[in-house]
Amino acid sequence: MKIINLDRISSNPILPEVKDAMIAAIRKDFANPSSQHTPGEEAAEALEKARQAVADLIHCENPREVVFTSGGTESVNHAIKGVAFANMEQGKHIVTSNIEHNAVIRSIRRLKSMGFKVTSISVDPYGRVNPQDVADAIQEDTILVSIMHSNNETGTIQPIEAIGKITREKKVIFHCDAVDSVGVVRLDVQKLGVDLLSFASNTFYGPTGVGGLYIRRGTKVWPLLDGGIQENNKRAGAENLVGIVAMGVAAELANQHMESRLDHLNGLKKKLLDELPEYIDEYIINTHPEFSLPNLLSISVKYIEGESVVLMLDDEHISVSTRSACATGSLRASHVLLSIGRNHADAQGTLVVSFGVDNTEADITAFLTALQNVVTTLRNISPLYNKIAKS
Amino acid sequence: MKIINLDRISSNPILPEVKDAMIAAIRKDFANPSSQHTPGEEAAEALEKARQAVADLIHCENPREVVFTSGGTESVNHAIKGVAFANMEQGKHIVTSNIEHNAVIRSIRRLKSMGFKVTSISVDPYGRVNPQDVADAIQEDTILVSIMHSNNETGTIQPIEAIGKITREKKVIFHCDAVDSVGVVRLDVQKLGVDLLSFASNTFYGPTGVGGLYIRRGTKVWPLLDGGIQENNKRAGAENLVGIVAMGVAAELANQHMESRLDHLNGLKKKLLDELPEYIDEYIINTHPEFSLPNLLSISVKYIEGESVVLMLDDEHISVSTRSACATGSLRASHVLLSIGRNHADAQGTLVVSFGVDNTEADITAFLTALQNVVTTLRNISPLYNKIAKS
Repeated sequence: MKIINLDRISSNPILPEVKDAMIAAIRKDFANPSSQHTPGEEAAEALEKARQAVADLIHCENPREVVFTSGGTESVNHAIKGVAFANMEQGKHIVTSNIEHNAVIRSIRRLKSMGFKVTSISVDPYGRVNPQDVADAIQEDTILVSIMHSNNETGTIQPIEAIGKITREKKVIFHCDAVDSVGVVRLDVQKLGVDLLSFASNTFYGPTGVGGLYIRRGTKVWPLLDGGIQENNKRAGAENLVGIVAMGVAAELANQHMESRLDHLNGLKKKLLDELPEYIDEYIINTHPEFSLPNLLSISVKYIEGESVVLMLDDEHISVSTRSACATGSLRASHVLLSIGRNHADAQGTLVVSFGVDNTEADITAFLTALQNVVTTLRNISPLYNKIAKS
Repeated sequence: MKIINLDRISSNPILPEVKDAMIAAIRKDFANPSSQHTPGEEAAEALEKARQAVADLIHCENPREVVFTSGGTESVNHAIKGVAFANMEQGKHIVTSNIEHNAVIRSIRRLKSMGFKVTSISVDPYGRVNPQDVADAIQEDTILVSIMHSNNETGTIQPIEAIGKITREKKVIFHCDAVDSVGVVRLDVQKLGVDLLSFASNTFYGPTGVGGLYIRRGTKVWPLLDGGIQENNKRAGAENLVGIVAMGVAAELANQHMESRLDHLNGLKKKLLDELPEYIDEYIINTHPEFSLPNLLSISVKYIEGESVVLMLDDEHISVSTRSACATGSLRASHVLLSIGRNHADAQGTLVVSFGVDNTEADITAFLTALQNVVTTLRNISPLYNKIAKS
């Protein structure tokens, strides 16, 4: 049974070309890239080739500024805890926003329990940070600003370049969680003015469990993983070489096909946005109309439970999500949706529809048709909806 | 050209059955195990199946006590830093040994720079810790004992069970770095009396970049990676599902074939040890005659440089190592060899010969023959050797 996968923000299937590269790497039996014999040197070459491809994707001039990690979460923890611990003599104040991913929020909360102070900035109704608020929040003892590039629940993109100007001027280290942006939209670490940038391979159709952290040369940050001298002494541990080789190939493809992918994804998003009113009424779009990812639309559907929609669509072999998969199982409403002004009921009625390069216009139409049925069914059994409809 | 790989401690080739499982997992396109739809549930099932297999390998009764990580280094960092930070209100003293892996040493050194105190215990001439020394080192404010199961440079195995009795009696958390033991020798976390045990998939012919941490229920330890609620809230981040599935299959095979593998490896080790005097003279065996891994022999060859031997054997298509691959590039002599009483010259003349289930007696003979030539050549050009030989 073919499943229509519109839950790409949780997990992307690996591209066929990337799968082939992974399988070839598995069959090759790489040695340890740190070993001094010939097989070790071959492994080191494969590692550095992948590093160059990833550096190219984010316009990083020196590939040594790219550190491979086990994924976006490790990159974020490395950046935030690493900067905090390495600079705590100088100050213990951190600036962040209210709509960050749990990896950022909980890393910072951990630091708070260790005596760090935090200023968390609120956002506008589309989830955007005002750069002036960042400037105002920076104090004498601020050592780190951490603001995400795009939000994984709404798709809204932040004014990172403007924030980067401020942090450079004020000489504060700037970390940007770009896990949902790198490989999806064009992005240049020089222009953005970030010191650290977190990203993950699966966002651009590489495997899960592998990611990267850009560390601008000269940034004072401790490793999260201490031990061996791998990754130019910035991240210890035998490398996930199969994953890294795959990430390199995925990065190359993302760089090469960026424009056509953007066209395709923006087309699907426009279709979904334009045709939605023909299928359901009474909903709110949480995604910024201009500054947002091409591959995601967040829709708060009134008078229904998002989780019920997910389960009923699953019966129709369509996958969507209500929120970050990392927060599944949590009963609380999304902090992101509450932060942009949704009430609890609307937050709980939210669907995140996210698509990939292999999704088609037919997938969008199938989703819309199924959504119409599901929403009608659910609203028919909703006492609240019936009360309002009758009044 | 076939390479005779006797550098298994740096990297093991992945077993054919494990490769097949990895390739099948790649082709399957797993969803995110945290997602609520059917593909998500299938992914979660694969994850839990692997967890059960790994739990079985270490005789852990509750699979929820197993946390998947990105490898041995992450497991060690998680255990040591996690216990230190979670228990620092209670005390800041840590007990360890002089011959730990760099992941342990540098994690603890990091904590030292943050105000923790450390007692590092010396070892006997075969690199064994005396359990009584651990008992004597434990103070009122000791929060953690970290002693490795087997040493990656000498293969010597520690009296973990005896140490576990002491830490339980004194109610101190006990972490054991078992990265080079799990999957190679039979090991039971109940019997050992450890609270935390670090291990890695590649040791038992799974891929690199995936490992595990056993956390006994009730052990007070913080996550190293904060963020999502994966791994029962103990380790955030989208899982490396391909790697984890592979590790599960590798664990199953290790469990199933443990006895025959031990026989085979011990046979190769005995052959190497018995026949070595026929090929070279003037060397010291650093591996414990009784308490040691079956797959590793450390030989300090007098009057030569180990690195020269590695490079010359590489020309003969034979891979061995001089020390931990994680420390390659460091010019210092091995801290492990210095700790067991080798002088600088002998430490630099050390070869670590490590073998796997696919190595044969013919590989050992080929190594011995090549070693004889290389050692003769190197000693002939050594002024020190010629001076001593003539006197």
